[in-house]
Amino acid sequence: MKPLPPQVTIVEVGPRDGLQNEAAAIDTASKIALIESLAAAGHTRIEAGAFVSPKWVPQMADTEAVFAGLRRKADVRYSALVPNLAGLERATKAGVTDIALFASASETFSQRNINKSIADSLKDYAEVAKTALAANMRVRGYLSTAFGCPFEGDIDPARVVEVTEALFEMGVEEVAVSDTIGMAHPGQVTALLRLLAAAVPLRGIALHFHDTRGTALVNVYAALEEGVVVFDSAAGGLGGCPYAPGAAGNLATEDLLFMLDGLGISTGVDRRQVTAASRALEPQLGHPLPSRLLQAEAAKAR
Amino acid sequence: MKPLPPQVTIVEVGPRDGLQNEAAAIDTASKIALIESLAAAGHTRIEAGAFVSPKWVPQMADTEAVFAGLRRKADVRYSALVPNLAGLERATKAGVTDIALFASASETFSQRNINKSIADSLKDYAEVAKTALAANMRVRGYLSTAFGCPFEGDIDPARVVEVTEALFEMGVEEVAVSDTIGMAHPGQVTALLRLLAAAVPLRGIALHFHDTRGTALVNVYAALEEGVVVFDSAAGGLGGCPYAPGAAGNLATEDLLFMLDGLGISTGVDRRQVTAASRALEPQLGHPLPSRLLQAEAAKAR
Repeated sequence: MKPLPPQVTIVEVGPRDGLQNEAAAIDTASKIALIESLAAAGHTRIEAGAFVSPKWVPQMADTEAVFAGLRRKADVRYSALVPNLAGLERATKAGVTDIALFASASETFSQRNINKSIADSLKDYAEVAKTALAANMRVRGYLSTAFGCPFEGDIDPARVVEVTEALFEMGVEEVAVSDTIGMAHPGQVTALLRLLAAAVPLRGIALHFHDTRGTALVNVYAALEEGVVVFDSAAGGLGGCPYAPGAAGNLATEDLLFMLDGLGISTGVDRRQVTAASRALEPQLGHPLPSRLLQAEAAKAR
Repeated sequence: MKPLPPQVTIVEVGPRDGLQNEAAAIDTASKIALIESLAAAGHTRIEAGAFVSPKWVPQMADTEAVFAGLRRKADVRYSALVPNLAGLERATKAGVTDIALFASASETFSQRNINKSIADSLKDYAEVAKTALAANMRVRGYLSTAFGCPFEGDIDPARVVEVTEALFEMGVEEVAVSDTIGMAHPGQVTALLRLLAAAVPLRGIALHFHDTRGTALVNVYAALEEGVVVFDSAAGGLGGCPYAPGAAGNLATEDLLFMLDGLGISTGVDRRQVTAASRALEPQLGHPLPSRLLQAEAAKAR
C-alpha cells in the first residue's frame, strides 16, 4: 500500500461555510476574534467571508467589516467567496488576495442555488477569474454536489471531471471537490479521485466534506490514500447541529486533527487552540457544536 | 491495493453493550421487541444480554426473562456475556448457545472493571470456556482497551497480541478486539491488525469500535483494507448520547450499514428495518440516539 502523505494543508472554512449556515447572527467582533484565534492556532488558509448579496445571505453581510478589522498575519491566506464581478469589486476594495468561486456539478442545484445553468455560471466565472488573476489574486473553485445532489441524487462522475477541467482552464489554482450534503462514501471518493487524477493534476484537488452521515473522516482517509493533500474543515463543525433542521455540519477541524495527529500527518495546526476558538464561539450559536471530539471532551468534563 | 471483502458479518451488540450503558431502565418486553426486530432486519448475530451481577449491572438483570420470552430464529445466534462459572450456569439454564467473555489488555482496566488481574481473569475464563465448549457452546472473547485505556493511556500492541493468543488457546472461536473508549485512529488499527495477523488467524478477529471521537467508521475502513470481515455495532448507536456524561456510544449499526451499503459490501441486514427498530426504542431512552444517519433523517423530516 502507498504510504499516506506526511503533511496536509487544512483550509479552515468555519468563518464562511460554517457561519453562513448558522441561524444565529454572530457579531463582527466575534467573527474577527474567531478568525484571529484560528490563525494563531496555526491555520495558513482561512475562508473569512463572502461578498454575496446580504439579502440572500445575511450572515455574511459584514464581510467588508470583517476584513477591515482583521489583523492579518503575513503567512496566512484569508479568502472570500465571490459570486460575480460586483462581488470581486467589493473583495478588491477590501484588500482580499484570495477569492473562491462556487460552481456546481448538478444542473438543478446550480439553478436553485445561483439561478444559472452550469454553462452560464462557468462563462461568468471565467470573466471573474480573468479579472482576479490580472490583479494577481489567487482563485479557488468550489465544485458543489460532486458526490450527490439533494434534487438529482447521483451525479455522473464524468460530469464532475468536466466541470473541474473547466475550472482549471479558467485559471483557478485549486478545485475544492465538495460533498455538499454529506452523502459520499469512501468507495465514491476513491473512484472519483482516480478519474480526476487521469484528467487534472491531483495537487490542485482539495476535498470538502460534510459530516451529515458520519462519513467525512473515512472519506478523508480514502482521499489521503489517493494522495490528496488539501482538506476543508470548519472549527467545531460550525454550520451544523445534530438536532437542528437541515443538520449538515462541515467536517469539524478538531475531528480531522484528531485523526491526522494520530496518523502522524503534520498540519501545523494546534488542536487545543482550535478547540478553544470553537468553545469561545459556542455560547452565541444557540446549540452545542457537533464535533464529536468536542462532545467527548464536554462529557468527560462533566 | 487489495480489494475490500465482498461480504462482512455484523455482530449487533445494542441489546447488551448498548443498553447496559443507558441510564434509562428498559422493560423486558421492549428489549425482546428490539431483539426480534433486529433479527427480522437480517442480523444473524445478536448479543442479547449478560449474566452478570444485577447489583453491578442492573440494566441486564432481566437477561433470563429476555431469553425466555424471545422467539428465536433458527439462523440467528443470540449470545450473552458471561463473567464466570455461575454466569455460565445461568446461561446454560436459559438455553444460551453462544457466550462471550470479557478480557482486557490493560492491567488497570482489568482490576477496576472485573476486580482481577489479567492473568487471573484468563485463568478463570479458561475454566469457563472449557465448560462451555464441553457443552457445545460457542465462545467469543472480548479484548477491551486494545487501543488505549482510560487509566493507562497507550496500550502496548504486543500485550494485545499476547492476550488475544491466550484467548484463542482456551478455545474461543473469535476475539473482538475492542476500542472501549473510542480513541483509536486508523493508523493504530492497521498496525495492530498486521501484528495480530502474524500471530493468529485473521478470520477469528472481530473489531469493536466506539464512535466517541468520530473515528469508528474510518477504523472499520482501515480494518476492511486488512481483510477483517466481522464488526460489532449497536442499533442507533445505543449506549451513548452526544450530550450525556461519559458519551461513549457504540458505532451505530445504521452508520456502519450506510458505509458498507455504499461500498457494495453485503451484510444481509436491511438498514431501514434497523432504523425502525432504533426509532421504536428511542422514546424510552430519554435522549436522541447518536447515530449520525438517524440525526440526518430526523433533520430532513422536520
